[in-house]
Amino acid sequence: MSLLAPLDRNALTHASPSEVRAAVRAGRWTGTTKRMALGYHQANVTIVPERHAFDFMRFCQRNPRAFPLLDVTDPGEPFARLAAPEADLRTDISAYCIYRDGVMVDRVANLRETWRQDHVAFLTGCNLSLDAVMIEARIPFPHLVRESAFPAQYRSNIATRPAGVFHGPMVLSYRAVPAPLLQRVVELTSRYPLCHGGPVHVGDPAAIGIADLAACDWGRPPEPEPGTTPCFFACGITAQAAALASGIPEMITHAPGHLFLTDLPISDRSLG
Amino acid sequence: MSLLAPLDRNALTHASPSEVRAAVRAGRWTGTTKRMALGYHQANVTIVPERHAFDFMRFCQRNPRAFPLLDVTDPGEPFARLAAPEADLRTDISAYCIYRDGVMVDRVANLRETWRQDHVAFLTGCNLSLDAVMIEARIPFPHLVRESAFPAQYRSNIATRPAGVFHGPMVLSYRAVPAPLLQRVVELTSRYPLCHGGPVHVGDPAAIGIADLAACDWGRPPEPEPGTTPCFFACGITAQAAALASGIPEMITHAPGHLFLTDLPISDRSLG
Repeated sequence: MSLLAPLDRNALTHASPSEVRAAVRAGRWTGTTKRMALGYHQANVTIVPERHAFDFMRFCQRNPRAFPLLDVTDPGEPFARLAAPEADLRTDISAYCIYRDGVMVDRVANLRETWRQDHVAFLTGCNLSLDAVMIEARIPFPHLVRESAFPAQYRSNIATRPAGVFHGPMVLSYRAVPAPLLQRVVELTSRYPLCHGGPVHVGDPAAIGIADLAACDWGRPPEPEPGTTPCFFACGITAQAAALASGIPEMITHAPGHLFLTDLPISDRSLG
Repeated sequence: MSLLAPLDRNALTHASPSEVRAAVRAGRWTGTTKRMALGYHQANVTIVPERHAFDFMRFCQRNPRAFPLLDVTDPGEPFARLAAPEADLRTDISAYCIYRDGVMVDRVANLRETWRQDHVAFLTGCNLSLDAVMIEARIPFPHLVRESAFPAQYRSNIATRPAGVFHGPMVLSYRAVPAPLLQRVVELTSRYPLCHGGPVHVGDPAAIGIADLAACDWGRPPEPEPGTTPCFFACGITAQAAALASGIPEMITHAPGHLFLTDLPISDRSLG
């Protein structure tokens, strides 16, 4: 395996989190992180200035389904000392989004020029961390079966509990679940509150304000999957929806789908 | 039952949390809260000025065994909107401790004169919330059997993970467990991470820096209980040990043993 050649997703499926991060840092992997370093927590990363950090941390605590906290950095430190002590949050994610005054203004490949001494990073759990569990249980989610597929995310009509400057709708991630597997998917996901737990809603998308599944706000529109039941899980993109809704001066995040690979096994329950 | 007469603990064992808080507010109950409003979360309450609040919240997140977060107030708001929306944190605890510059300087019956607009209150879980579970399982902990008994707490040699200005030893709460019930106690307590979960240490107290069980730092010294195994659980008094160790300018807490009764049932797992 060359040091410089691009990598295939299959090469990283059973890689360690540090191998995935090294590939990202070296520019050898620039894609989404679905089905990578199976069995470890993938984290949403939300960076805010210190003066908004306590507000954002209360926002997480009040909305634990959307924001199961894995780690919070000290101001100015781009290192997640609990979740991945050897990683660098400025370089180890393959794409970042920059929001200013309620608008997404840029998408960048690293934060080397952007990171400041007053930045605080929040790492929160993601349901892509359950890819390992779904593969083992033979749940045929499209994003695990087809390379071109990726989960779709939607703004729902469920409001988050506000905290300080932060408010906005809960964003939900869609899974089409074959009807005979519905009970199993609910049971398995419910065991992992740090990966958003079980579905927030099962059934009619209109009941939670989603008029058209084809018109997703993030991710990729789902193809129709006959014989499936719609399931919606809380999603960390809720932070980005809050940046848009509340118009705060600055938030920097991972780009949707491009998560940060932590060293925390999903089997470790000591964090919550 | 008179409106003004002092109450007996038995009268509050099966009372609702709001009834216990009303009795405390009216001065009809001034004692500890063991075996009260069975089945609801009793909370450690730690109040710090807003400028230390983000440090303290990271301290909680990094030490989840000691500080399972139940609620965090907005600055200046003495109301726990998630945990007990109708309660007043200034009056609904029967005794408070005031720490300044690393010294406990006062013990007061309410915070009517003390609460400020920059105060933030953190509510964290307590293992007294498991009294209901232990009674149902017929675990004869001394504090449940004898009115005069109360658990003993000790500074251990286990360090907390520091955050900002906060550091110090983990404080542990002692239970003498009859040897045949040890497995059952570990199993039951481990189901409740918001009540500190299972024991941090089982066996020789000297292994965690406790030389003499009779010399406890908080609570009441245990009487010798032949045929029991020492079990030590993480304890919210760890916050008060941090106030003493880190010498921060101000922290206000519930007095050890005098916890805040929330409306959250311990059976509700939606918080974590």
